[in-house]
Formats: sequence, structure tokens, C-alpha cells
Amino acid sequence: MLQIPALEKLVHELSRLPGIGPKTAQRLAYYILRSPQEYTHRLAESLMRVQSEVHSCPECFNYTDLDLCKFCADPHRNNESICVVEEPSDIVRIESSGAFRGRYHVLHGVISPLEGVSPQDLKIQDLLNKINTSTEQGHPIKEIILALDADLEGDTTVLYLARQLANKGLRISRIAHGVPIGSDIDYVDDRTMGRALENRVEI
Amino acid sequence: MLQIPALEKLVHELSRLPGIGPKTAQRLAYYILRSPQEYTHRLAESLMRVQSEVHSCPECFNYTDLDLCKFCADPHRNNESICVVEEPSDIVRIESSGAFRGRYHVLHGVISPLEGVSPQDLKIQDLLNKINTSTEQGHPIKEIILALDADLEGDTTVLYLARQLANKGLRISRIAHGVPIGSDIDYVDDRTMGRALENRVEI
Repeated sequence: MLQIPALEKLVHELSRLPGIGPKTAQRLAYYILRSPQEYTHRLAESLMRVQSEVHSCPECFNYTDLDLCKFCADPHRNNESICVVEEPSDIVRIESSGAFRGRYHVLHGVISPLEGVSPQDLKIQDLLNKINTSTEQGHPIKEIILALDADLEGDTTVLYLARQLANKGLRISRIAHGVPIGSDIDYVDDRTMGRALENRVEI
Repeated sequence: MLQIPALEKLVHELSRLPGIGPKTAQRLAYYILRSPQEYTHRLAESLMRVQSEVHSCPECFNYTDLDLCKFCADPHRNNESICVVEEPSDIVRIESSGAFRGRYHVLHGVISPLEGVSPQDLKIQDLLNKINTSTEQGHPIKEIILALDADLEGDTTVLYLARQLANKGLRISRIAHGVPIGSDIDYVDDRTMGRALENRVEI
């Protein structure tokens, strides 16, 4: 590196971003040096703006710049069904399928003993509180759909949630994992095929 | 994308960086949202600081935060030899070899008709002026080493510079391209091997 403190500091901060190693950070820093001042201003400004304007929705913990996120604020959505996701970005994926019209709940992570993420670090207690409150208020939540990844952490979290939510009279389900639509069966991996056979649907 | 203007703006600005596509930009934006406010502040601040503190050295066009870059300011370096490079980052590579103790000159690019980069866009005239001035002042520059990449643009720029610098009584050379030290000859590509044979050194 050129021994310029301001440049080294920028490379250091950039290399803390996920997927950006020291080499990439250096390339980005040089690009920023070469780019017009207006661009750097806009980038720095939008960084600060995201931090100040965007926050978690107090109801479902999705990101929003309003008091409530647009799904919680929408009076036309079904209050009895809640789809539990890992991150706000998962909501976008589910919404674009058009197959769900209930409310969401974002855990902001999954249980991962390896990475030191325990149930207390996630929005699990908030989900339980929400369900209890809904029952007390006479408009009970009736269905919980767990839309978590099909990996070790996702499975662990599904098991934990299923245990916490048991005996509350809820219908609890998990999104189906199987062969993707349009894909060639030849190219499906063993675990996906195993899951697809296990969860076969009668016709 | 979640329809949050501040978030969409950040994704847009991030995806203008080289090697950062829309998907990666989205991932980075979510990471920034999740990270502590201090980090975002530090990142935004170091972006602005690099723009305000770092500029081109007026002598050699290397990046610096001082009046002259450290190589131009060093009185112990050889004034008679100039190494011409494409980007300031190339200087770091050459310096760490310890094999050159002269001055540098950064072109800030290479001639590339495909990308619309003509000789006028580069610091070529400044190099010619520097050589002429040195002769007028009685301390003539005697050697020019071209340390440019061995690709089409690099070759074009070397040819152009060689023509511009001819008949000035300068020793003009280009860094050697050949088989890298420690590498297995089996794995060397055809063009490198061609160059290595062409430029063979008598022993």
C-alpha cells in the first residue's frame, strides 16, 4: 500500500464489509480516489441516510422508514397468519411469489451455536409475546409458517420454534423443500432429493 | 428490494463500484443497516477524508497527502532514471522489489481506443515536459523504464511512448516479460513462453 493514512483507513474500513478482502478494498479505494467528488459525496451521504432513516418496524422487525412497515400498516392483510423469516430480504422473495397475504415476523438471524447466536439474540420472545397478546385481545393468531433456510441453523431454529409454539392451538408449518420448478432431476443434489421424496405429496 | 428510498439509493450508489453487482450491493447495504452506527460513520468519514486529503503529486502524479509524494520528496533517489507506470498502485509493487531507486511517473491509464482513452487523456505530455525541462536545467533525465502491463493496451502505449521519446538521447527500456520465478514451465501460457524465448538472455 501507498503509505497515506487517509487511504489506508478507507481500505481498512472497506475490508470489514462482507465478501470484501484487502485486495478488493484496495481496488475500491483507488476507484473512489479516481471518481468525481460528487460520487463520493453521494455515497457517504446515502450511507448516513440509511443509518438515520431506516429502522426496524416495531411490530414485525422488517426494515422501514415509516412508523410501521408497509405490511404491518396494510389493513387488507390477514392478521391470523404469520410468516416467520430470517432476514427482511426474505420478505421480498416471498412477496414476489404472491402466495402469502398474511403478516410477517423477522427473527434477524437463526440459532447458531457455532457463531454464538442463541435464541435470546433473536426476535423469538417478541413473536411469543405477539401471539399471547393476540389471544388476550380476542383476535388470535392461528397459523405460523416458518420460512427458514434448509440448512443446519435453519433446522435447529425450526425445531426450537416448534417446541416454543407447541400447545398454543396454532397451525405450525414449514415451507416445502424439494426439487425446484423447471429444474432437471439429474442435477438435483442428494439432500434436496431426499427431502423431496420424504415430503412427497399425494395426487 | 424493500421499497425504502434511502436503502434503494445506497444500493444504487454501491452498485456503481467496480466488481459490485446489484446483488452484492444489496448484501452490503443490508450489512450496513445491521452494523453499529459508529462503523457507518467511520466509513462515510473515511470516504470524505480520502477525497479531501489525497491528491495527485504535481511532479509524478502518484497519490499523496503532502505537497510532493514521498518518492519525489526523497533527495536520495536517482533523478536521472524515471519509471513510467499505469497506476499509483503499480509503484507499491515495484518498490517492494527494491530493484529501482529512481523517480516515478504515473500515466493514470493506458491508451485504449476501445474504451475511448487517447494519449491526451493520460499524463504523457507532462512526462515530455519533465524531460525537456530537465535538459534545459542542465540535469538531464537519462533513462526511461516503461513498466506497463503486457496486454494490448500496454503494448500500444509502449509503442506510442517509444515514438514520442525517440531522438531525445534517452535510454528507453521496458520491463522484461517472461516465465515467473519459481513457476513450473509446464504451466506457463503460450504468449508468456513466446515472450520468454524472444527475450532470452545470453549467459
